[in-house]
Amino acid sequence: MTPSSAPLASAEIIAVGSEMLGSNRLDTNSLFAAGRLAALGIELRAKTVVGDDPGRLADVFKSALARADLVVLTGGLGPTADDLTRETVAETLGLELREDAAIVAHIAQRFAKRQMRMPDVNRRQARVPRGATVLDNPRGTAPGLLIEHDGHTVVLLPGPPREMQPMFDELCERVLAPRAGTFRVHTATLFVTGRGESHVEEIAHPIYSRWTSEKPPIDTTILAAPGQVELHLSLRDQATAAAEERLRRAHAELHAALGEDVFSTNGRPMEDVVGGLLRDGGLTIAAAESCTGGLLMSRLTDIAGSSDYVAGGVVVYSNELKVALAGVPDDLIRAHGAVSEPVAAALADGIRERTGASIGLGITGIAGPGGGTPHKPVGTVAIALSTADFGSRVRTVSLIGGRAQVKFQATQSALDMVRRAIIRGR
Amino acid sequence: MTPSSAPLASAEIIAVGSEMLGSNRLDTNSLFAAGRLAALGIELRAKTVVGDDPGRLADVFKSALARADLVVLTGGLGPTADDLTRETVAETLGLELREDAAIVAHIAQRFAKRQMRMPDVNRRQARVPRGATVLDNPRGTAPGLLIEHDGHTVVLLPGPPREMQPMFDELCERVLAPRAGTFRVHTATLFVTGRGESHVEEIAHPIYSRWTSEKPPIDTTILAAPGQVELHLSLRDQATAAAEERLRRAHAELHAALGEDVFSTNGRPMEDVVGGLLRDGGLTIAAAESCTGGLLMSRLTDIAGSSDYVAGGVVVYSNELKVALAGVPDDLIRAHGAVSEPVAAALADGIRERTGASIGLGITGIAGPGGGTPHKPVGTVAIALSTADFGSRVRTVSLIGGRAQVKFQATQSALDMVRRAIIRGR
Repeated sequence: MTPSSAPLASAEIIAVGSEMLGSNRLDTNSLFAAGRLAALGIELRAKTVVGDDPGRLADVFKSALARADLVVLTGGLGPTADDLTRETVAETLGLELREDAAIVAHIAQRFAKRQMRMPDVNRRQARVPRGATVLDNPRGTAPGLLIEHDGHTVVLLPGPPREMQPMFDELCERVLAPRAGTFRVHTATLFVTGRGESHVEEIAHPIYSRWTSEKPPIDTTILAAPGQVELHLSLRDQATAAAEERLRRAHAELHAALGEDVFSTNGRPMEDVVGGLLRDGGLTIAAAESCTGGLLMSRLTDIAGSSDYVAGGVVVYSNELKVALAGVPDDLIRAHGAVSEPVAAALADGIRERTGASIGLGITGIAGPGGGTPHKPVGTVAIALSTADFGSRVRTVSLIGGRAQVKFQATQSALDMVRRAIIRGR
Repeated sequence: MTPSSAPLASAEIIAVGSEMLGSNRLDTNSLFAAGRLAALGIELRAKTVVGDDPGRLADVFKSALARADLVVLTGGLGPTADDLTRETVAETLGLELREDAAIVAHIAQRFAKRQMRMPDVNRRQARVPRGATVLDNPRGTAPGLLIEHDGHTVVLLPGPPREMQPMFDELCERVLAPRAGTFRVHTATLFVTGRGESHVEEIAHPIYSRWTSEKPPIDTTILAAPGQVELHLSLRDQATAAAEERLRRAHAELHAALGEDVFSTNGRPMEDVVGGLLRDGGLTIAAAESCTGGLLMSRLTDIAGSSDYVAGGVVVYSNELKVALAGVPDDLIRAHGAVSEPVAAALADGIRERTGASIGLGITGIAGPGGGTPHKPVGTVAIALSTADFGSRVRTVSLIGGRAQVKFQATQSALDMVRRAIIRGR
């Protein structure tokens, strides 16, 4: 093989295997490869899963070859009859296959180590397209293959992640990085809460649309995720401080326009952001949860080290437990109903007093699907925050979605109340 | 639109969205759709993820159209400028787009319900290609579209799974099922806990390997999932009672071999299975959680109607709160340490007594990454179950994985203790 120095700017990934077209197996190799390619500034344009069918694989492979500099195929390198990647790629590129004696010896040795003789079918794994470079597989019998063809680079790797991943890392370092050129994909994110996707778009669009015509452009994607709207900025440019600075300014401009609704500028989730604010402020938190059933405390305690600022709390589904564990006055529930602002406030005050935490949260609402009324439909949640200095404040939110969505969004709103209260110093 | 009666034998799925080409977001809709298509006996030939780029999307879409009777596209139907699926498909098929007044009214109404005005950008979601059928989206603003074109069926669905999934089910029932052939993929599952993947395989392999040479064969896949091992059986055969019966017998044979370790025979998660047992037994449950931080109660309360049997509980991270909220004797913690079987038992007894629930659970452990010692490494969790009739029983488990995995597996073990206790009647 003549070593190629053609630059690699774009890539596609093809995962081969009918088992990944079922309903319970995901192709996870492509996630791994996507991360490694992004780090090298190689743009991943598409990824495809295709079954063990030579005609369809050839078709998908040709399309990928037409769109990308680098095509990575995983799977279908095994010894059995339905492992067709090697043969299909060789035939599509018009390359003859020859058995490689060194590979046969290597495979036979692997079997010998386990006191087994190599089955004849494994000879298929030793066939190499003319001009291809063999990539060692220290963890399995199927070697990888690297083919340079007509200005394109084609890589074949085995499907099992524990074989594929170290081989891909080795490939990145030795072959891809030197040819990835000096470009990198610089990325930045902003996570927003308290506004819907459309309203974020209304504010952000006039700003980010200016960047799409600049050279090189900054791409902005807006995603509605549970409880938050995410802005993902990416800039494909030289790996220079100037490019970093350009993206930083763009990021800062969007941040300024969206203001306090931006809760995270580095991809950290809400529970991590709030945890950081609690830690920095030397504060502790406790919660009395009804409809969220413990999810708020579970999210806070997902963060390592959260025992420093999470005191604890109670889950009080029944009215009796709201009284017994959080000290809510019985007559308050009778007067206003369990889902009401006065009860939320009493939950927040009660749990703060009983735990001695700096901040108490009370959440009571209707997660659904049952329990709604015309006056208080499913999704109605009252959230209260209590501190010793400022007493309690309460808001009622109307959330949309199934039970899990209502629970999650209610915890997101509650955590966001904590965030804003700490930022504003009250 | 002229309703089509062309048979549907093959399908491809295209997920649209640059975010799914990164290293941290998977396209999960295609797994769902793959299962539904398999159930109808429609062969999924390939699935592709493509970014928000009209040229590449058009290219991928054309390739899929050439290979399959049915092409399902998900995502890219939002209101923002990078949502391009509707426009790209219409242009590729040469269909003019027109704004549909009924859809505009529907979207405006969704906003009005939340006392919001519809942003102008949302009008894009009301554009319909000539001849297309609009598919209602009861859970979002983006309607789906069904297009019959040149003997092919094209379906556009929104990306958020909670919107896409019910729409796809509706589509299967109303449009796809009547046009699928007489073959179906019959499936059955068994979820196992308390045994590792290899041990399940040792028991199951001698049984299921017999079925692979039968005609048609029954395929068995064993998957290790968090806190459980899953066996997935599938049989592609005519949609007859005889085929169903054959699969039912195979399922029963595996169930008998795996015995009480099988906790679910119909795909229901552990929290749902345990909820059903509590409800059927007229029992209530409460928990005192330390290292799981509320996750156990949150899982139980993810199930609709769980307020009937979940009393509530406490999250007690600090030793002070273990004493104050769950009544653990202070000297017990001093004598044995917070992570110990006596403290777990005291948590279980204490919360049961304070809430009046039939069953009390106590969980105390080290979720990590910090806090481990040589004697009690990260992943050590003591779990106790207490009932008025039988007192408390305790076990200590050693769990592997990061903080989130330890938390989840600890709740899975605790719920499984409840399950076995109820099944055994003690």
